[in-house]
Amino acid sequence: MADNGQQEQGKKLDLGRFPVRTDLAREAHDMALQERGDQGEIPGIQIDEYEEHGIMTSWIRIQDDHGAQELGKQPGLYLTLEVPDLRSQDSKLQKRVMTKFSHEFERFMREVGVDPNARVLIVGLGNRNVTADALGPFVVKHTMVTRHLFELMPDQVEAGYRPVAAISPGVLGTTGMETSEIIFGVVEKTRPDVIIAIDALASRALSRVNTTIQVADTGINPGSGVGNKRKALNRDFLGIPVIAIGIPTVVDATTIAYDTANFVLAHLNREMNQTKPTNPLDPLNRASVKELQSQEIAPEARQHMMGIVGTLGDAEKRQLIHEVLEPLGQNLIVTPKEVDAFIGDMGKLVADGLNCALHEAVNPENVSAHVN
Amino acid sequence: MADNGQQEQGKKLDLGRFPVRTDLAREAHDMALQERGDQGEIPGIQIDEYEEHGIMTSWIRIQDDHGAQELGKQPGLYLTLEVPDLRSQDSKLQKRVMTKFSHEFERFMREVGVDPNARVLIVGLGNRNVTADALGPFVVKHTMVTRHLFELMPDQVEAGYRPVAAISPGVLGTTGMETSEIIFGVVEKTRPDVIIAIDALASRALSRVNTTIQVADTGINPGSGVGNKRKALNRDFLGIPVIAIGIPTVVDATTIAYDTANFVLAHLNREMNQTKPTNPLDPLNRASVKELQSQEIAPEARQHMMGIVGTLGDAEKRQLIHEVLEPLGQNLIVTPKEVDAFIGDMGKLVADGLNCALHEAVNPENVSAHVN
Amino acid sequence: MADNGQQEQGKKLDLGRFPVRTDLAREAHDMALQERGDQGEIPGIQIDEYEEHGIMTSWIRIQDDHGAQELGKQPGLYLTLEVPDLRSQDSKLQKRVMTKFSHEFERFMREVGVDPNARVLIVGLGNRNVTADALGPFVVKHTMVTRHLFELMPDQVEAGYRPVAAISPGVLGTTGMETSEIIFGVVEKTRPDVIIAIDALASRALSRVNTTIQVADTGINPGSGVGNKRKALNRDFLGIPVIAIGIPTVVDATTIAYDTANFVLAHLNREMNQTKPTNPLDPLNRASVKELQSQEIAPEARQHMMGIVGTLGDAEKRQLIHEVLEPLGQNLIVTPKEVDAFIGDMGKLVADGLNCALHEAVNPENVSAHVN
Amino acid sequence: MADNGQQEQGKKLDLGRFPVRTDLAREAHDMALQERGDQGEIPGIQIDEYEEHGIMTSWIRIQDDHGAQELGKQPGLYLTLEVPDLRSQDSKLQKRVMTKFSHEFERFMREVGVDPNARVLIVGLGNRNVTADALGPFVVKHTMVTRHLFELMPDQVEAGYRPVAAISPGVLGTTGMETSEIIFGVVEKTRPDVIIAIDALASRALSRVNTTIQVADTGINPGSGVGNKRKALNRDFLGIPVIAIGIPTVVDATTIAYDTANFVLAHLNREMNQTKPTNPLDPLNRASVKELQSQEIAPEARQHMMGIVGTLGDAEKRQLIHEVLEPLGQNLIVTPKEVDAFIGDMGKLVADGLNCALHEAVNPENVSAHVN
Repeated sequence: MADNGQQEQGKKLDLGRFPVRTDLAREAHDMALQERGDQGEIPGIQIDEYEEHGIMTSWIRIQDDHGAQELGKQPGLYLTLEVPDLRSQDSKLQKRVMTKFSHEFERFMREVGVDPNARVLIVGLGNRNVTADALGPFVVKHTMVTRHLFELMPDQVEAGYRPVAAISPGVLGTTGMETSEIIFGVVEKTRPDVIIAIDALASRALSRVNTTIQVADTGINPGSGVGNKRKALNRDFLGIPVIAIGIPTVVDATTIAYDTANFVLAHLNREMNQTKPTNPLDPLNRASVKELQSQEIAPEARQHMMGIVGTLGDAEKRQLIHEVLEPLGQNLIVTPKEVDAFIGDMGKLVADGLNCALHEAVNPENVSAHVN
Repeated sequence: MADNGQQEQGKKLDLGRFPVRTDLAREAHDMALQERGDQGEIPGIQIDEYEEHGIMTSWIRIQDDHGAQELGKQPGLYLTLEVPDLRSQDSKLQKRVMTKFSHEFERFMREVGVDPNARVLIVGLGNRNVTADALGPFVVKHTMVTRHLFELMPDQVEAGYRPVAAISPGVLGTTGMETSEIIFGVVEKTRPDVIIAIDALASRALSRVNTTIQVADTGINPGSGVGNKRKALNRDFLGIPVIAIGIPTVVDATTIAYDTANFVLAHLNREMNQTKPTNPLDPLNRASVKELQSQEIAPEARQHMMGIVGTLGDAEKRQLIHEVLEPLGQNLIVTPKEVDAFIGDMGKLVADGLNCALHEAVNPENVSAHVN
Repeated sequence: MADNGQQEQGKKLDLGRFPVRTDLAREAHDMALQERGDQGEIPGIQIDEYEEHGIMTSWIRIQDDHGAQELGKQPGLYLTLEVPDLRSQDSKLQKRVMTKFSHEFERFMREVGVDPNARVLIVGLGNRNVTADALGPFVVKHTMVTRHLFELMPDQVEAGYRPVAAISPGVLGTTGMETSEIIFGVVEKTRPDVIIAIDALASRALSRVNTTIQVADTGINPGSGVGNKRKALNRDFLGIPVIAIGIPTVVDATTIAYDTANFVLAHLNREMNQTKPTNPLDPLNRASVKELQSQEIAPEARQHMMGIVGTLGDAEKRQLIHEVLEPLGQNLIVTPKEVDAFIGDMGKLVADGLNCALHEAVNPENVSAHVN
Repeated sequence: MADNGQQEQGKKLDLGRFPVRTDLAREAHDMALQERGDQGEIPGIQIDEYEEHGIMTSWIRIQDDHGAQELGKQPGLYLTLEVPDLRSQDSKLQKRVMTKFSHEFERFMREVGVDPNARVLIVGLGNRNVTADALGPFVVKHTMVTRHLFELMPDQVEAGYRPVAAISPGVLGTTGMETSEIIFGVVEKTRPDVIIAIDALASRALSRVNTTIQVADTGINPGSGVGNKRKALNRDFLGIPVIAIGIPTVVDATTIAYDTANFVLAHLNREMNQTKPTNPLDPLNRASVKELQSQEIAPEARQHMMGIVGTLGDAEKRQLIHEVLEPLGQNLIVTPKEVDAFIGDMGKLVADGLNCALHEAVNPENVSAHVN
């Protein structure tokens, strides 16, 4: 997650990109569909999704540049698990999601051509001293590490394991070094075959906080600004596949403000049009953002409001929100009060899931016997 | 701070009380003044305030029931330090504020008649496992405790100290017991002369988060619901004076939504009236909330907006915000991302300040030699 | 565990009491048997023990003052689980021990006449900021707390639960108050039927560290010094049964020194007598301490050594060890380097075991769904 | 500090090397002097030492292979601060030692030819999740990091600072990678001019725990076993100077046993010879170990004891201690109970001292304003 020192990595909290940008391909796909005004397919995008016992699984492949442009995401494979009930802290559900995540992640590695015996380097991104950003380091702490056993006593390693190393490199503000520089150096010396990078994301929607897991083979890609090339964690830069696992843990406060502004405006529209607006924060209402927008720009509404509400375009709204939040700096986040506990739960889920997926000898029944 | 289990203590996060309720007398005073439409005095309220090197100090005495009603706060003495720059983490400023707080707190104890040798029990309210709520336990951890020395080896205690005990009782959700029950029992057995209770507050304004310290002799008072009497930490219940120290550490997410809604409406008004609205979150603009309200309810504005914006009364706004945030539960908070560090800084400041104020032999120069 | 400020509670680290004193009845029983020179029964002591899948369970009842004097422990019921392999951090074994502990603890409560619906107060003794002493607070943190639900919404509590409250009162050095004063006050206000107190012990034997759990109905009893009465946590003082759960987490450094000295002397004896001494630290060798002593004081050995080794009596050895360790203060402990992880494992085991034992609706399969 | 997985780095806990090996040149020098039986100079060793207000400062230069062999340490420059009172947690003394350390460290860098503007990489060795081993990561956390500012906005960096980066790479057991591999990679990518590596040491003497700081230009050097070359953190391996800062935080439990055994034997000697043995753990008695040994092997003593005590040679003692401690594994450490607090104090001292030494603009008066 972007911290003060790391804003250059251009990751998430950027007022200017509202309302279109999201870190989640699943969300981008919904928004793109609605923008097209139909429920049909988007050229260049392949999507496969299904719901099972409260877990929505979707596989999205962005096949070409056209699809990439439509979704505002890099070409590649995206796996998303959405589990609205995950925040209930029901440990049976957590185990079920962990098992599901483990299976799907194994399949993901096959799909992107990672060899079953590939040597893995797990990278926990983020700042361990900032609760909402500590997901990556937390996963690394609970990951089963085996590479040194293969190096030091290869004869004694039992079958069913592969070499796994793990590191939490810290963030620019605490190390003074780009994370990618550190990882590049480590990769050159230790020669893994694939990197799995875990990061906490800032979500567009509160409903996704600690309920959604995204896996992507595109790595971690900062904005396209000057000098950003050396800041990426991807195959181009590192020469090996980089699988990114991201979980939204916070929402930027500007999002709340933006959504509220939209909702108020839509409400005023409704007053005139007698149509019910959609709550942009409602997790059950995937069409929300787009519908809201369509309502706002409905020509008849603009007329009705004598040009006043209607003239409030995106740029003006952005300016308005900027004025509201500007005195307070850019680092305001919205979290559930119990964020400490949620990060622990999600971190354990991902770590256990990876341990099961990476080692044939480890499964949901014995995983807790392998780590502590 | 209210947690799930402790909502009954009725402390802070209550949608219904918007927009009038605040935990801070200083804020309530400003709002009351503006409601009266003048800058004169409010009967029953005595106020004395001054600014010095970036620290705004105010003493407010609510003298009678009339004043209490005007401010919505209990009669008593309120001391407030406001230091907008405190969030810059400048340790020189922190030491200056600590010294100031220590002096003013000493004076506060004299004003409310606490004997210089009074035996003190410091109570750290809040949940140590929830970062934003851990201020009280953090202060207790860094408090100099001496009571046992007076009890066990009274002859060996040097001059310049007084008996101080300290406890972090936990919260209802983690102990299963009302905090006041625990403290009542401890008071009966250990017989302190005065209680100092430290608590993290939910603020009305983001600008106050980790920049404002309030001291009050009214103790901790939950709402006036059934059975709430035994939940209070005050002189009525405990039989000894209770001095409450409160610091805003979070803002309820509903506040952001509420302020944004108001700002959008005011903006629409401005579009029609060509008057500049006031940013309700701007820390430099104390008149904000009231002005905003007066703008909203300006009759000419209502007419201009053809009854549409204008008819959006408080109840309707509350309903609107409820609809926006409802899917997400009531426990959403807004904090700076660096909340972990801020809680540490403010907790150390209060602990050191108390150590200096309570023991004649301790001063800002030697305080760090007394604790660790 | 005794800390600087709490040495008056006279708990454990007392050079003078070597070699006879131990906190564990199981250990005291072995020593007493050997002192008597036979393997028969000790009048006033009832013992029942059996081993099952690596868990040694023993029930000892000290029936009268004679038995109490023989063992140096108060009359009462003592349950001990000994699991040498527990330190291997095998989570399957941990779950098995947790289940066993849960069953035996339930039986223990029945044996001492605690009603199945008795209201429970769990007390986590020790200092949360000292790793080796943090067991009690750790257990409290992972305990299921329900009392407030019974108080606030009795109609909504499902069957299968009972009212449980929990508190970590801190230690004398951090609160300035005797733990027993705090608990006495809390008991008077909240009226539990029984107290369960968890404490980290200093062990006599390294082999017991984090491998032994003792349950006793005698509560926590400091030495018999002046003013110690008000420091006890027992039925006499509090008026309700107090069940103490103790786990050795450290060994006093003096123990290592003492055992080494004994072993060296025994070795010299062996050189002369050609008999093999017993390693006092060997977990498999229960007879160790006594045998060692008998060897030391064997008259023929004394003669052989020309009165030199032989004249080294207990008092002299104590003096010797005092000279070795004196420059370093009394607070030296011996722990496994991984003490942080062990405390977490044992704390989770006890917390889960209590949650299962106290609530009919909770069992080893669903316990993790009840807490987090 | 060596952990399970890192034992290959051969650092400290090695029963076989008793009694001669120590990580501290200061200690090795005393032992060597005594072995020579005189108080004169050792060829190849230059030593300069002085005491000032409770701080003993010594500079030792091992000039050639002869000196290296005498001391069992690599040729190079060793600075040692010894402050017996440091464990009293007097924060005034801490500040004084920090200031002294800062000055001496600056001089050390000049002596070993590090340029005043050299770009620095601080490496915090050790495992952050093991209290006694967390010193290095703790220092890194409190270190002022500036390199990214020089990289990203060189024009805005004020005078008086230099580029400093910092990393806590973890340990072999938690990363699966040799620390030196990680650091090598990072050095190649980020091109620092000098490395400062901080590590917790296992001390030979309890009196040194948290009271001694050693600085050496020899880096971190594991034993000379096969494959150990790539495990070193030194100039040979990394191509840039490596300054190692080490602080003893624990004593291996075998040390206590060994010292006790020696003391008992010496006591028996005394019984026969009427000479007073020296306490090997006494911090005021530097000659201890050697004297003890000379007493043990005094031929007349051997005769007196009829060959019994006397025949107990080093190998036999080692065997004896092995038998005593063997059942317990090798990872037993002895620490003060308050180890958590001591690590915090020493870590802060070193971090502040480095911040002052590395940046001209930072001094003991303003250092706390630079970090948090």
